[in-house]
Amino acid sequence: MERSYHGKILHVDLTGGRTWVETPPESFYRKYMGGSALGLYYALKEIPVGADPLGPDNVLVLSLSVVTGLPISGQSRATATAKSPLTGAIGDGQAGGFWPAEAKAAGYDAIVMKGRAPKPVYLWIHDGQAELRDASHLWGKITGEAEALIRQELGDKRIEVLQIGPAGEQLVRFACLINMANRANGRTGLGAVMGSKNLKAVAVRGKDRPRAADPEALQRLAKWGAQNIDRTMGTFPLYGTAETVGLQQASGGLPTYNFRQGVFDRFQDIDGVTMYDTILVKRDTCFACAVRCKRVVDIQGKGFEVDPLYGGPEYETLAMFGSNCGIADLAAISKANELCNKYGLDTISCGGTIAWAMECFEKGLLTAEDTGGLELRFGNVEAMVEAVKLIATRQGIGDLLAEGSVRAARKLGRGSERFLVAARGQEYPAHMPATKRTLGVIYSVNPFGADHMSHEHDPEIEGEGPAHERLTRFGILNRIPMHDMGPDKIRFALYTQYMYSLADSLDVCQFVWGPASWSPFGPDEYIEFVRAATGWPVSLFELIKVGERRLNMMQAFNAREGLAAPDTLPPRMFEPLSGGPSDGWALDPEEMKQAFRTYLSMAGWDVETGAPTRGKLEELGLGWIAGRTG
Amino acid sequence: MERSYHGKILHVDLTGGRTWVETPPESFYRKYMGGSALGLYYALKEIPVGADPLGPDNVLVLSLSVVTGLPISGQSRATATAKSPLTGAIGDGQAGGFWPAEAKAAGYDAIVMKGRAPKPVYLWIHDGQAELRDASHLWGKITGEAEALIRQELGDKRIEVLQIGPAGEQLVRFACLINMANRANGRTGLGAVMGSKNLKAVAVRGKDRPRAADPEALQRLAKWGAQNIDRTMGTFPLYGTAETVGLQQASGGLPTYNFRQGVFDRFQDIDGVTMYDTILVKRDTCFACAVRCKRVVDIQGKGFEVDPLYGGPEYETLAMFGSNCGIADLAAISKANELCNKYGLDTISCGGTIAWAMECFEKGLLTAEDTGGLELRFGNVEAMVEAVKLIATRQGIGDLLAEGSVRAARKLGRGSERFLVAARGQEYPAHMPATKRTLGVIYSVNPFGADHMSHEHDPEIEGEGPAHERLTRFGILNRIPMHDMGPDKIRFALYTQYMYSLADSLDVCQFVWGPASWSPFGPDEYIEFVRAATGWPVSLFELIKVGERRLNMMQAFNAREGLAAPDTLPPRMFEPLSGGPSDGWALDPEEMKQAFRTYLSMAGWDVETGAPTRGKLEELGLGWIAGRTG
Repeated sequence: MERSYHGKILHVDLTGGRTWVETPPESFYRKYMGGSALGLYYALKEIPVGADPLGPDNVLVLSLSVVTGLPISGQSRATATAKSPLTGAIGDGQAGGFWPAEAKAAGYDAIVMKGRAPKPVYLWIHDGQAELRDASHLWGKITGEAEALIRQELGDKRIEVLQIGPAGEQLVRFACLINMANRANGRTGLGAVMGSKNLKAVAVRGKDRPRAADPEALQRLAKWGAQNIDRTMGTFPLYGTAETVGLQQASGGLPTYNFRQGVFDRFQDIDGVTMYDTILVKRDTCFACAVRCKRVVDIQGKGFEVDPLYGGPEYETLAMFGSNCGIADLAAISKANELCNKYGLDTISCGGTIAWAMECFEKGLLTAEDTGGLELRFGNVEAMVEAVKLIATRQGIGDLLAEGSVRAARKLGRGSERFLVAARGQEYPAHMPATKRTLGVIYSVNPFGADHMSHEHDPEIEGEGPAHERLTRFGILNRIPMHDMGPDKIRFALYTQYMYSLADSLDVCQFVWGPASWSPFGPDEYIEFVRAATGWPVSLFELIKVGERRLNMMQAFNAREGLAAPDTLPPRMFEPLSGGPSDGWALDPEEMKQAFRTYLSMAGWDVETGAPTRGKLEELGLGWIAGRTG
Repeated sequence: MERSYHGKILHVDLTGGRTWVETPPESFYRKYMGGSALGLYYALKEIPVGADPLGPDNVLVLSLSVVTGLPISGQSRATATAKSPLTGAIGDGQAGGFWPAEAKAAGYDAIVMKGRAPKPVYLWIHDGQAELRDASHLWGKITGEAEALIRQELGDKRIEVLQIGPAGEQLVRFACLINMANRANGRTGLGAVMGSKNLKAVAVRGKDRPRAADPEALQRLAKWGAQNIDRTMGTFPLYGTAETVGLQQASGGLPTYNFRQGVFDRFQDIDGVTMYDTILVKRDTCFACAVRCKRVVDIQGKGFEVDPLYGGPEYETLAMFGSNCGIADLAAISKANELCNKYGLDTISCGGTIAWAMECFEKGLLTAEDTGGLELRFGNVEAMVEAVKLIATRQGIGDLLAEGSVRAARKLGRGSERFLVAARGQEYPAHMPATKRTLGVIYSVNPFGADHMSHEHDPEIEGEGPAHERLTRFGILNRIPMHDMGPDKIRFALYTQYMYSLADSLDVCQFVWGPASWSPFGPDEYIEFVRAATGWPVSLFELIKVGERRLNMMQAFNAREGLAAPDTLPPRMFEPLSGGPSDGWALDPEEMKQAFRTYLSMAGWDVETGAPTRGKLEELGLGWIAGRTG
């Protein structure tokens, strides 16, 4: 029987310039599947407790899964795992594109990189061969240029490049990894980890495409899913995540002026429909995906020039640089997005940090003297774009902001911490706990900090009436009133968190593969997919346990660092929002405190420390972690 | 769409002679499914904390499930639930036969009975009508006679009768419920509960057979399963559970002389093959089941006469009255079995109590004076049969033994407690922890006391090599060495316990529906079955959560009574066995202590008290129980 993975892990010692191959048994793949769970296995085994995230002891894992690279929508994604320089806890990020499928075809299921190269290098993997090459001439280059140079010098246009930009080299704490010059393993600052290792890029090319154990079943599933896209996803393929701007506005959940409002009076100017009608030139895609949700914009002479190579802004980017900075200028946002992709910055943390700085500036906690004259006011288009540049290059005020808002506030003092909107050191994404309450819990308990792709917060679910059919597979039979925070709501968050955690361990796209009713594939199709790919007769029980395992591995990592307790909620979350449907809405501190306890207890985590109990780890086959922590 | 359940629960107030009908919503059925979980719902809601198990406050629930009565093998079973007079904790027992399917056709999914009738009554349910009828003339009658009288007076030979015999009337603490005069809800003494309520019988007849939501899918599954029987079950249909005698002997796991040996030199005389070749006259069955595993024996003039109406001995009965009492006489064992079915006694507790008494007698702790001259020695055929009669009627030494071995030892004193082989007040069944180690944990932690049908202990699983395919659905990929008691073994026990717990909530036969490789149906077929029956798109995750829910409901019941902590292991378990393959084998106290802690922590139960954590209850949608316990 063919198998959909290579059974080969590439290890790279950057200090010694050495590579070697590990061949784990089948049971290893069935237990961890790939992606995040697989990456965490190496993070837990190889990163010493207390390691400096920017030191050679940190280990960066790029991992694919047992389904990556198969010809079906939503499977070409890769996970990056390392200790986060932004949070000090576990770091994690997924990205789509063509790199993941190409990396799989190059012959490995994962790449585990440790140490620090004496001088800039890049890793070149082709048809099972791995080689560290000099990258001195690439250091300092923006992503598009570095990618072109690598393809040129290796003489193959179809090489895919995952890399850091100058921001990663400069150790900006929210620097990201970029592939195709526009796809980002965005969060937790893993670009700085790569930078600290003097590793510029990982270039891949290969012909060893994975083969499904049951190619006919896979083909049937792929076809079924493709036919489902229009019916379930509606206008999503057309407008992309950008259409979320209008949806959030309608429910009062569009973060505006640093999360002080849930509505933005000029939201239409930055909505996905407007983007489609004005600057969009192309819908881009990931390997084998029929959805084509990615934006490509081309802007000339609207105050900013934007190169289409760098894609176009997603919803998060639109909201964080747009409404949350009081900005209604699509060209400016697109420029900020392009800069982030050129320099390798996480748009969410970047936008959130700038919004925080804007509020500090307007309230006099940051002055023009601090900013070198930059008028960092809400709505100041030029200042916002300039701030991105300064951060990417750590110039002027950018050097402070490159530390992320939480560290910056600590350095700045002056009471600036009260304007932070972050959890575990990471800026909130553009989904508001005031309107979707489970976010208030998940942002604080999620092991890698505030994240919006770690559980389901579909407005179809938080409401009245019967739950949609897919959710009933988790025993969730009814929708739960929007603002309710009782055990049923927490269970819904936890169970869907396991599902999303599974997605990140299979490295599949959570839009295409979700428990949500609007995803073309749902839980039943996960089973079919993994069965068709691997030949293993998996059940949903087994798959969800993979997701739960990955979440517990993350939290176990944090427990070793003494960082497992949930973060407190930012004070802003208790301040009533103003305007629109969410006018006056705020979280209740006591209710949230109880919700945290419910979550921890339900997850099998210590209610005080947040650490997974020994029994929970052992249930998940992770006793080896408990042994290490004693 | 047709549905496979009535949506009707019959409530009976025996004190007031009143009945009424409750109609729970669909979500109730999907959450609890039926059987044990459904019974526990009412036990938890309606039995006051501290209630006397033999008082009117106890509530007895007879429950069917959303699949009971459909035309497929292994579904005609019913659960009895109440507070146990044997253990003081939750009581539970399942039985097959034709009663369950007929009870379903009579119009109800469950019968909830409380109070105490002023004089003996029986309940007559036919075509949705329920009636309490005088049973004065039936009181004192053995089961076969009472059944015949009821059929006669109601004028319908196809009436099915579930009843107590004289032992239940006499409040023997291990009295059982009997249907068809030979099927028993055997354990935890629920016959005494029925007796204490002056309720002789529940007679049922009806035409409202359940209809599957998808009859074609059900038919396909039934046919597939029937074709599987020969392939997977081998000689089981032919020899029944009785063939286990030889299998246990071969592995050194046949309890002999009150659990002092795992081999019995005359085992062949009581083995299933011998039974088949000598006294077996018929293989009997349950409604719609193609396996036909039940034994019917007819004995005339071999020292004992045995009426075929009362069936024939199962493995448990053969071992408990046979090898464990040092008896190698099939006729005597069949007679003891017949008496248990006539009088309504659990053969396991009865045999275990007699074996304990025999050891006490041989060691001089019980004297001929105590026994009224009965020479209660191992191997004394007549004394064993006589003891059963005395227990059933509470005469002579039988009055002490009718309390069960644990209470009897407490009353007797004289150091007799050191010969007990029981957990939580209930005698061990005929499977030995020394050979199958997980039993040592499950016997002690199982909420309703020592039970052999609460998890998987297939010798195919405890061993070396890859686990069989079905188990991989639980993430159990490898077999685990026989005597290993590490976390992997405990997880295997816990997960299969959830599966068995699900079986008891769907009221399906654990032989026909198992995670074991030799069951015709496995986990995948559970999904198909419940989907076909109900139309609900269930997953294995949801189903296993039903099993986990039921187990936690039981344990929550015990926690309210202060009885949630695992029982200690009997001293005998630490004494080395003698002879055969298990010569010298014994449990290790420290290893078992650690195993208990691992189990409790893994289950989400407090490691000290054994009570389910609030988070675990809330995860399972059982917050209402936590609320009640404060």
